[in-house]
Amino acid sequence: MTDPATVKPTQKQMANAIRVLAMDGVEKAKSGHPGMPMGMADVATVLFSKFLKFDASRPDWADRDRFILSAGHGSMLIYALLHLTGYKAATRQELSNFRQWGSKTAGHPEYGHMPGVEVTTGPLGQGLATSVGFAMAERHLAAKYGEDLVDHRTWVVAGDGCLMEGVSQEAIALAGRYKLNKLTVLWDDNEITIDGKVSLSDTTDQKARFKAAGWAVKAVDGHDVDAIKAALKWATKQDKPTLLACKTRIGKGAATMEGSHKTHGAALGAAEVAATRLGLGWDHDPFELPENIQKAWLKVGRQGAKHRKAWEARLVASKQAADFTRAMKGDLPETAFAKLDAKIAELIETRPAQATRQSSGAALDEVFAAIPELIGGSADLTGSNNTFVKDTPIFDAPTYEGRYVNWGIREFGMAAALNGLALHGGIIPYGGTFMVFSDYSRPAIRLGALMGVRAIHVLTHDSIGLGEDGPTHQPVEHLAALRAIPNLYVFRPADTVEAMEAWKIALEARTTPSAMCLSRQKTQAVRTVASAENLTAKGAYEIKAANGEARVTLFGTGTELALALKAAETLEAEGTPTRVVSVPCFELFEKQDAAYQASVLGRGTVRVAVEAAIQQGWERFIGEDGGFVGMSSFGASAPAEVLYEKFGITSDAVVAAVKARL
Amino acid sequence: MTDPATVKPTQKQMANAIRVLAMDGVEKAKSGHPGMPMGMADVATVLFSKFLKFDASRPDWADRDRFILSAGHGSMLIYALLHLTGYKAATRQELSNFRQWGSKTAGHPEYGHMPGVEVTTGPLGQGLATSVGFAMAERHLAAKYGEDLVDHRTWVVAGDGCLMEGVSQEAIALAGRYKLNKLTVLWDDNEITIDGKVSLSDTTDQKARFKAAGWAVKAVDGHDVDAIKAALKWATKQDKPTLLACKTRIGKGAATMEGSHKTHGAALGAAEVAATRLGLGWDHDPFELPENIQKAWLKVGRQGAKHRKAWEARLVASKQAADFTRAMKGDLPETAFAKLDAKIAELIETRPAQATRQSSGAALDEVFAAIPELIGGSADLTGSNNTFVKDTPIFDAPTYEGRYVNWGIREFGMAAALNGLALHGGIIPYGGTFMVFSDYSRPAIRLGALMGVRAIHVLTHDSIGLGEDGPTHQPVEHLAALRAIPNLYVFRPADTVEAMEAWKIALEARTTPSAMCLSRQKTQAVRTVASAENLTAKGAYEIKAANGEARVTLFGTGTELALALKAAETLEAEGTPTRVVSVPCFELFEKQDAAYQASVLGRGTVRVAVEAAIQQGWERFIGEDGGFVGMSSFGASAPAEVLYEKFGITSDAVVAAVKARL
Repeated sequence: MTDPATVKPTQKQMANAIRVLAMDGVEKAKSGHPGMPMGMADVATVLFSKFLKFDASRPDWADRDRFILSAGHGSMLIYALLHLTGYKAATRQELSNFRQWGSKTAGHPEYGHMPGVEVTTGPLGQGLATSVGFAMAERHLAAKYGEDLVDHRTWVVAGDGCLMEGVSQEAIALAGRYKLNKLTVLWDDNEITIDGKVSLSDTTDQKARFKAAGWAVKAVDGHDVDAIKAALKWATKQDKPTLLACKTRIGKGAATMEGSHKTHGAALGAAEVAATRLGLGWDHDPFELPENIQKAWLKVGRQGAKHRKAWEARLVASKQAADFTRAMKGDLPETAFAKLDAKIAELIETRPAQATRQSSGAALDEVFAAIPELIGGSADLTGSNNTFVKDTPIFDAPTYEGRYVNWGIREFGMAAALNGLALHGGIIPYGGTFMVFSDYSRPAIRLGALMGVRAIHVLTHDSIGLGEDGPTHQPVEHLAALRAIPNLYVFRPADTVEAMEAWKIALEARTTPSAMCLSRQKTQAVRTVASAENLTAKGAYEIKAANGEARVTLFGTGTELALALKAAETLEAEGTPTRVVSVPCFELFEKQDAAYQASVLGRGTVRVAVEAAIQQGWERFIGEDGGFVGMSSFGASAPAEVLYEKFGITSDAVVAAVKARL
Repeated sequence: MTDPATVKPTQKQMANAIRVLAMDGVEKAKSGHPGMPMGMADVATVLFSKFLKFDASRPDWADRDRFILSAGHGSMLIYALLHLTGYKAATRQELSNFRQWGSKTAGHPEYGHMPGVEVTTGPLGQGLATSVGFAMAERHLAAKYGEDLVDHRTWVVAGDGCLMEGVSQEAIALAGRYKLNKLTVLWDDNEITIDGKVSLSDTTDQKARFKAAGWAVKAVDGHDVDAIKAALKWATKQDKPTLLACKTRIGKGAATMEGSHKTHGAALGAAEVAATRLGLGWDHDPFELPENIQKAWLKVGRQGAKHRKAWEARLVASKQAADFTRAMKGDLPETAFAKLDAKIAELIETRPAQATRQSSGAALDEVFAAIPELIGGSADLTGSNNTFVKDTPIFDAPTYEGRYVNWGIREFGMAAALNGLALHGGIIPYGGTFMVFSDYSRPAIRLGALMGVRAIHVLTHDSIGLGEDGPTHQPVEHLAALRAIPNLYVFRPADTVEAMEAWKIALEARTTPSAMCLSRQKTQAVRTVASAENLTAKGAYEIKAANGEARVTLFGTGTELALALKAAETLEAEGTPTRVVSVPCFELFEKQDAAYQASVLGRGTVRVAVEAAIQQGWERFIGEDGGFVGMSSFGASAPAEVLYEKFGITSDAVVAAVKARL
């Protein structure tokens, strides 16, 4: 008799290991989504065992293929795969602790928790949209460093929900436009959503839609191993991004519930689990595996090691090794800020009066050559966002070495792709739009903050100062709304020096995205005294001391800081000692020690803040009785200077708010 | 010789009137977008003169066709059309005051400023997405009241930007699924965006894409009057929504700049304007019209009057006249709240312990039959959002009389369609999703607030109480972010009574959208004393008085109010007189008079607030030295009760925060 431990399992049997682990993990947690992992187990088995380039012992190997579970609710699929292939962190203990406090097996896959999870997914559509950034990064770095060092694919598992979300359109249009042929989407075409059949709410011909976006498309039986193999092979041969419509049965293998939306988002229950085990011929305890299947999967996890080692040898031999390694680690070049620092020193003298969006563009001018991993663009507002550095080649197919991206009118898709570019490594990405459209990109800004990625959002036209375009285009609540997101630096620089300091911080912030809030309209230079320190990094700092013991503290940001300074002049002239505090970044202020914070806040003085936005959040600075000069409604359509006057955001109003409190 | 004033102008000449007005309006403002109105002038002329059912003297005629300028930056197109056809408000003075303070001719068309503007547009894609709501409203009301009363079309002008935005996919998929055949999109296919050619960033085959979404599609030369006529005619005969790809030249007619992206977003300049006049043979001062063209256009504005009068006669004869008129006016039925009020009285006695999402569902149960214009659904989370009232027929093709909508996994598209349903009139719409996905729908929530529409956003799973799904699905900053939006009621009810009161307010709020923030997890009943007043309408109110002179004030919302009440019990037991304030709606509190506000705020007492969200905004209640028990980071994946414990949101923590301050 053959020893069962040595019998080579079939791909189907290997897939059943995923099914059972997924079912058991959810059952133990009494919470989760077994249907998707069970349905996509066959596809995932073929992908991992025959196509995905990876080495389970080195989750951080730079040239690995990226596997992205856009349908993040099916997280047990990836946890099962990582466990089976021998990722050290994906222990049996972790699997049985699915969705519990402190485990690495969060309800949705979370970047930074479990090695092998490339992106935090769950908010539907975003895994797919982020994957476009990965695929762009690969093409760019391949063009830059050669395919000897960079030559890998991005594989995405997406569900019907991902494809219904609008961001999927932005993503697939971008991928199609840029012919990202190393991107493959495996659509779990199971015709089921939470509420029932997909057809309840959607009758889109997805295959035709992807074709219209410039993709190569193929349908495949998602339970036919040979067909899957052939289809994946086909995908690797195309000159376009590829969609495989994998026709599957949700909860495949479940004894009585296979094909039902009941397997989507809840544990199957003990009876169904037992019956499913029986049906699959699976005679093992939860989280326990037959030896031959375990061995076969672990072998899969090791089979990429030889490719990895060959790659390492090529890296060592490469003249670009040092630069490649540095960039992938996320270190900046040593000379990153040489020109910028010199420029800041110069600006303290020359004091240009310009819009902060121009200041931001000027900052880019100073760092763009020095930081070659900086890649950016605009969502069709290049001239307005000041995101283009002269003579930058365009990122395009086939000129992927270009560093300027025409993102199109796709703020959300852009922001998600920025996350992907940053997560891939080797790139520091930025993208521009009008600040009001941060509402469009907000879900990706949030996910970037949650993951802790260095993505830089350039948001110009940051207030009613936008003028004639009117309230649809004037951010009023957006500063507050962005400041509300944890782990996001929201900068509102007051002049060119602050803008440059903000860029420096953003570029150095390895685990925090930044939002640069920048004015359309001109403002005066306010930083006129040289400082050895990056004062913006303090979040808030005294920019003008009082003449004598301060009776008044004025706070301001961006273009309104000039109003505070002018009001201070008036008050001082009338004999009221007044200090002025610039507040370029609330979040960084909160990181300062209590003594510094107290010294800035100036309790006991009359406190008034001015910002062309709503008050929410400013009580932190002005207390309950302070004054606030700003907005309390949406804006209006008129020239900027008229709007400031009509909405009462003037230095006179600041003075009046002070006097009412003196 | 013929008197030129009596010569019937050609459609081309009538279109030139639009071109010149648009060019002149932008020139005068030195700001705006002349290219689109000039490019689409021929299409708009044929549409308005031959197809659009309207009567310029009655912009509010219920059965008019709706014209929606999704490409809102081309606002001079609609202003010119309204002026030419004789809308009273669209005076020459208004045209020459384009984009100025106090004018009705805002930079982007704004609902409520200028009659004839059906929707505020400008944020790209949203006009199109909103139009789906209009078209749904038409089909529903036609099914309900008959086509004698309701039988009109929705026409949308959309640009390349609208089609690149992801929300367009959600919109066209919805329209296709529901076979909204009275919706026609006129795509200004001019191949130009702000940054240059569309092909810079997009190569999507839009016609194939719309077909894939279930639309009938036709291409037409947008400058060939007969072809346009035939195409519009064709559109009215289809059994699906229709896309007309109108091939146009941006800035058509401009002397040297026709076809260039330079006409997109800036004034043409005096020289180009003069040369264009010459080229068009237009020998008139700015805003002045040749008499024959003026007459012809005014006739167009009057030609619908006979249809309108016939319709009015049918209305008068209809048995449904009163109900139709009431619903279109936005008045609620007299008995709207009879059952709900009785239920509230009952609940004060029975005090059910249930999740507030269940409470919200219970509120719907009580009003759904009594308010037949209430139509809603969920973005594929029906069971979770508690949005379905038992036995409600489904809105579908052809059963448009159904009142439950399967929105699909399209939060943004849903929210935009809610705006459209509300703006159309005759309907009060609601839509459900997880609260964290208010980030997806946020741009439409904002636009609804700006327009002042009665749309109700049901946002369940409102905190870490969501549990195992983890931080991607746990709102932490969303309460603050939503409270930041002007003119939005953000309700976070603490129990069933407050949830029902909130629904009552939302249903009565004709010019304010509402966000219902509702818990996944159970909570206890906190309102146990009958009140003649709707206490939720005060925004904040004392729910428990102190025993003796209050030394402490505790504030709470939603599921955390119970923690505040429990903490108060502990404090009172220890001899510390403690009052508790429920804060279901910040915005409504701000509308109370100063004396009431002061009485609630309890200055001089130790103040602590508890809410499972970030602190931003709470300083309004607790001052600078108050305590806050809540979140300061993203959440985590674990069961809800574990998360509350681990993140320290407990009644013990409230007590400790008080004691640290006593």
